[in-house]
Amino acid sequence: MSIAVTILGNSSAKPTASGHPSAQVVNVNEQYFLVDAGEGVQRQMARCGVSPLKLRAVFISHLHGDHFFGLFPLLSTLGLYGRRTALKVYAPRPFGEMLDGFLRLCESDLPYQIEWVEVDTTKHQIIFENDTTEVWSLPLRHRIPTAGYLFRQKEPALNVKKFSIERYGLTVQQIVQAKRGEDVVLPSGEVLANADITYRPYGALSYAYCSDTNYSARLAKMVEGVDMLYHETTYSADMRKTAKERGHSTTADAAKVAQMAGVGRLIIGHFSSRYKDLEALQAECREIFPATDIARERETFLIEPKATKQ
Amino acid sequence: MSIAVTILGNSSAKPTASGHPSAQVVNVNEQYFLVDAGEGVQRQMARCGVSPLKLRAVFISHLHGDHFFGLFPLLSTLGLYGRRTALKVYAPRPFGEMLDGFLRLCESDLPYQIEWVEVDTTKHQIIFENDTTEVWSLPLRHRIPTAGYLFRQKEPALNVKKFSIERYGLTVQQIVQAKRGEDVVLPSGEVLANADITYRPYGALSYAYCSDTNYSARLAKMVEGVDMLYHETTYSADMRKTAKERGHSTTADAAKVAQMAGVGRLIIGHFSSRYKDLEALQAECREIFPATDIARERETFLIEPKATKQ
Repeated sequence: MSIAVTILGNSSAKPTASGHPSAQVVNVNEQYFLVDAGEGVQRQMARCGVSPLKLRAVFISHLHGDHFFGLFPLLSTLGLYGRRTALKVYAPRPFGEMLDGFLRLCESDLPYQIEWVEVDTTKHQIIFENDTTEVWSLPLRHRIPTAGYLFRQKEPALNVKKFSIERYGLTVQQIVQAKRGEDVVLPSGEVLANADITYRPYGALSYAYCSDTNYSARLAKMVEGVDMLYHETTYSADMRKTAKERGHSTTADAAKVAQMAGVGRLIIGHFSSRYKDLEALQAECREIFPATDIARERETFLIEPKATKQ
Repeated sequence: MSIAVTILGNSSAKPTASGHPSAQVVNVNEQYFLVDAGEGVQRQMARCGVSPLKLRAVFISHLHGDHFFGLFPLLSTLGLYGRRTALKVYAPRPFGEMLDGFLRLCESDLPYQIEWVEVDTTKHQIIFENDTTEVWSLPLRHRIPTAGYLFRQKEPALNVKKFSIERYGLTVQQIVQAKRGEDVVLPSGEVLANADITYRPYGALSYAYCSDTNYSARLAKMVEGVDMLYHETTYSADMRKTAKERGHSTTADAAKVAQMAGVGRLIIGHFSSRYKDLEALQAECREIFPATDIARERETFLIEPKATKQ
């Protein structure tokens, strides 16, 4: 029950011969979510061995081309592959209008439904939820309406300790009670406190994707304590003014957010094409927040389940 | 004064980890034309060392995504690069509607004009012309309106033979006359026939791009005698029925067109993702038309000036 993030692209808008624009696959409990979809995303998925048919939903941060130009080609290909399951695309306005144009002019005959879910980029709220997973929107500060996305595993159901079952000879009914979080009263009248006889099989993990954005202290609050934070670092620390003007962050900005939020690990990306030496950007972050790594393309970052007491 | 064709993609619609969809750069007398623009075209241009700023015009054969999904990202990038020169895009309907949507929803602030020129895919006619070059539309037989494009150098102006100038002591005025194609009368009354004292510095070259299309004898007529023909071969010879149904050609179809048209050389591409062994497809063509080569990605095919008598 881990979270795995596979980087498909780590470049900002200007294309380079070697890099791809923003896109990543977030795998939460074997549910595959595509987060942003820069040009070439489907080819990058193929190179990373992720079948596009596996996609459960798509989350687009904002409608600058380097974050979504690869989506429509991917949606076409899903048609060629004969996808039948509806696909939800979470994106800010005016994505619906783009989708309408695409369906009318390019793909009037797709074998599956595409459902646009409008993301309100001003609100921090749950936008996707099922038994195991929540996705929250994160208001970001960019030149156009932009949202980050926070993926949270839900706390798993309680397990009853084997030791307790044997020691107290618990009945099936008592085990069900304990799993519901209730205390158990033995025939002798002894009360077994729920916390003493149960445990969580794994700790709930979390991952936040934040691109593109200016430095935001408010954002640090919203991603407090996440296990892994992807935060854009379009610019080096000395480019603070440019970053601010263009709605982007520097290395120092990202590291400061990671530090304030007390995250487990910081992954940096969305690099301006001017930087050939990404290690230097990483070093700038590490001065402030040591647990920083570069989001290298085609690399997978695994958030492993935390050890729990049994 | 050559024609050079750089292959940016040779795959058909289903994307693969190794191949790119249709796109090529046709360089006629140092004028760069983009012909089709499948996804990833701008990155492929970067990898081939062709600056997108050099593009003189774009020609789109038809509006299936694998032939144009890379165009809008490229148009955005030209904005980032600060292009000021208007760019003409030749494409069939409803490209204009797509362009309007793109400009309204994605790029309301581009620093250059994009002018759509509607291509009538039912007509074989000149659609682009300047001092040195003509481009003709070629009606193709596909599932939706589709045009191929025929690039023709114009015959260059006549040069006067150095030998004649010296031997007859030609005056500047007489040289100008000869360059205009006129005979020259010497003071002695002797008449120098224009053909004897002039030559063309190079032969006019031609290249035809034909994708996607069913076999067409009419097409063979239109591309008669071209120096190089790119003809799609989506399928192997045994897939004739499938090819016909889907508006595509087999290897045998393409080779037959090349043979009937008496072209100088056949380049094949737009391969179905089912084929790993492109050599086998080439071999099938060569049985009918020996001068066949595979349009390998990032390879440049040069049509060199023909030797002329001086």
